[in-house]
Amino acid sequence: MKNVLHAKCVKCGKTYEAAPNLTNCTCGGILDIIYDYDYIKTTLTKEKLAQRGDNSMWRYRELLPVEESTQAPPLRVGWSPLYEAKALAAQLGIKKLYVKDDGLNPTASLKDRASSMAVAKAVEAGAGVIACSSTGNAASSLAGNAAAAGLKTYIFVPSRAPKGKVAQLMTFGATVISVQGSYEETFELSKAAIEKWGWYNRNAAINPYLSEGKKTVGLEIMEQLNWMVPDYIAISVGDGCTIAGLWKGLKDLHAIGFIDRLPRLISAQAEGCCPLNRAIAAGEDWRPMEENTLADSIAVGVPRNADKALMAIRESNGLVVNVSDEEIMAAQKLLGRTCGVFGEPAGVTGPAGLKKLCEQGKIPADAAVVSVVTGNGLKDVANAIAACGEPISIPGTMDRLLEAFEENGIHPGKSA
Amino acid sequence: MKNVLHAKCVKCGKTYEAAPNLTNCTCGGILDIIYDYDYIKTTLTKEKLAQRGDNSMWRYRELLPVEESTQAPPLRVGWSPLYEAKALAAQLGIKKLYVKDDGLNPTASLKDRASSMAVAKAVEAGAGVIACSSTGNAASSLAGNAAAAGLKTYIFVPSRAPKGKVAQLMTFGATVISVQGSYEETFELSKAAIEKWGWYNRNAAINPYLSEGKKTVGLEIMEQLNWMVPDYIAISVGDGCTIAGLWKGLKDLHAIGFIDRLPRLISAQAEGCCPLNRAIAAGEDWRPMEENTLADSIAVGVPRNADKALMAIRESNGLVVNVSDEEIMAAQKLLGRTCGVFGEPAGVTGPAGLKKLCEQGKIPADAAVVSVVTGNGLKDVANAIAACGEPISIPGTMDRLLEAFEENGIHPGKSA
Repeated sequence: MKNVLHAKCVKCGKTYEAAPNLTNCTCGGILDIIYDYDYIKTTLTKEKLAQRGDNSMWRYRELLPVEESTQAPPLRVGWSPLYEAKALAAQLGIKKLYVKDDGLNPTASLKDRASSMAVAKAVEAGAGVIACSSTGNAASSLAGNAAAAGLKTYIFVPSRAPKGKVAQLMTFGATVISVQGSYEETFELSKAAIEKWGWYNRNAAINPYLSEGKKTVGLEIMEQLNWMVPDYIAISVGDGCTIAGLWKGLKDLHAIGFIDRLPRLISAQAEGCCPLNRAIAAGEDWRPMEENTLADSIAVGVPRNADKALMAIRESNGLVVNVSDEEIMAAQKLLGRTCGVFGEPAGVTGPAGLKKLCEQGKIPADAAVVSVVTGNGLKDVANAIAACGEPISIPGTMDRLLEAFEENGIHPGKSA
Repeated sequence: MKNVLHAKCVKCGKTYEAAPNLTNCTCGGILDIIYDYDYIKTTLTKEKLAQRGDNSMWRYRELLPVEESTQAPPLRVGWSPLYEAKALAAQLGIKKLYVKDDGLNPTASLKDRASSMAVAKAVEAGAGVIACSSTGNAASSLAGNAAAAGLKTYIFVPSRAPKGKVAQLMTFGATVISVQGSYEETFELSKAAIEKWGWYNRNAAINPYLSEGKKTVGLEIMEQLNWMVPDYIAISVGDGCTIAGLWKGLKDLHAIGFIDRLPRLISAQAEGCCPLNRAIAAGEDWRPMEENTLADSIAVGVPRNADKALMAIRESNGLVVNVSDEEIMAAQKLLGRTCGVFGEPAGVTGPAGLKKLCEQGKIPADAAVVSVVTGNGLKDVANAIAACGEPISIPGTMDRLLEAFEENGIHPGKSA
């Protein structure tokens, strides 16, 4: 890889050759992939990018840690739409708001970006089996991306994983182990099994390449905004890998001169599980918390990528905000009604946090903000129905329709 | 609209000016939009298309029945991936197979193509409210696309609609009437209500513009194949609008000289509800059938667009194939395992039909086939879990994992 110098431990600074099956540093620290930005500057220009027909995350090959000969895995991941959300911006009282709907990825979450990278690196490593533990989305994305590439998967999920995610796993033919316990217990069992059987490791805080896949969400946001840097980017935070990846992408673009400043990150967590935001707010080290939120994808009491995530939030002079489950479900409804975007609970925690910060007067009215929706609402239908209610149910006659409208205070007319 | 001549009844041939709020002909026949292909040939070339950055169905504006000043609605609909499915082709014993995953549209089904068109035409008509009846997908796509455009919706669904689709509707803020009866009763109630309150009509067999939205799936398939015409295109059929739209798109491309021949259509229906295929097979008129299949989106006993659909299948010298619910669910699994594509039951009925025809020796081994997946499996998780089974559930210890692998005959190793 001509564009990559080496991997470097974020804790002790030790460097490693960038082999495809890298895991953590011997000190336990997480590795970061270090690029040769001078070289990349000679190979990538904005004009070259604009000409590219590839509407997937692999359009950014020069910034990705793969061999030149490595093929992009089969599923088309990334290049999700970035919508300008005028109605929602007006409601929140900010000048410009953009919503990035990453729930439109092949398996319906941002995690496809990491899994596509995992499949590419597993193929480079000559592996036939990939494994991971996950709250659900990393699992289903790995299962789908690996199935398309002809690789076998072993997946460990906590038993609380919503039915939609489990249905995906089973359909994609993964061997699924549902662990009767917390995400932390699930992670530990997967770790032991991966060591025992030597599977390729797609645990996001262990395999340093996965953040590099996730960073493409940041690359896309900037290209879709025509390199106009927003003031803030809001995103939900669980394990910490996604916000760290987002930040890495932005810093890459800054390093190669594609953007001239960096946005501030907004880290949104659930009130019932916010160990990283608590650490930032208190200016302390993080400590474990219980996993007490319906936003299952970010119910991570022991964040595995705390170091990179905290560094990202601090470096960006970021904001932290915690939202209740009620605020999350209200944001889901608000986003659906104003943008036609249906996010899963964790997926809309970023927008929920942004809304809260706006209400608290913490976001200036002239700000330009991007809010990332990280997963599709169809993954967790039960919570959506609980939040939005059931339809009017009647037999098929006009009399009953008129009665039902009357009872529900609906006054139908021709205009909205 | 310089590219449109008029609308013409497929039954009696009467023509109408192409006003945005067209419905059926006075004779009850369905209208078809007639284009000025000579004019279109002067404005659209393959080279021009290839340069276009717009990765949505609106890249084909010259072939769409909208005013030049009409803006594309907000949600990014279309340009779904077309995957070459080598492993599945090998299993089915055919030379080339491509899978078009239309479940990756914004509300997760092909119906977004029609709803995006409906929103564009409703805006042209100055309407503030749109209504439709639907087995589910047209409903949720209309609700989402209209919400993003700031339009209000009244939606009628049969009470059997799966929870995923209902959750979408409620989240998008539609007024939803769940009718305790068949799709036919649901349709009739919506028709009466639309007449009573004068809402813009998005019933696909009434509003002739909707097929024109759906036809973009055919336009995309051909452009994505670089204008190489496949021998067959397989798709599931309910109301008949989708296969009719697909055919219209292919004929458009033939008329402007972008392709030099036309593929044969494969119309796949459920054994428990196949009035159109029955008519083709018997060479007779269609007759109503019961709605007896778990593939809810194509459980249409009284197909509303029978005329256009039957014409399309016959004109293309098409094949018809009926599949059992078991065959549908087996195809869902097969597609997940070999392609990483998760389709809803009706969504995979096309692939299921293709598989059956291959097994019956009706598809030559050197054929190139495209199979369209019309909706995302996340819309109907209950059926997927029933078909694929539940994961292995254990406490988080290695002993229990080893036991579970033993019990389930799983022999983990490093290779696939």
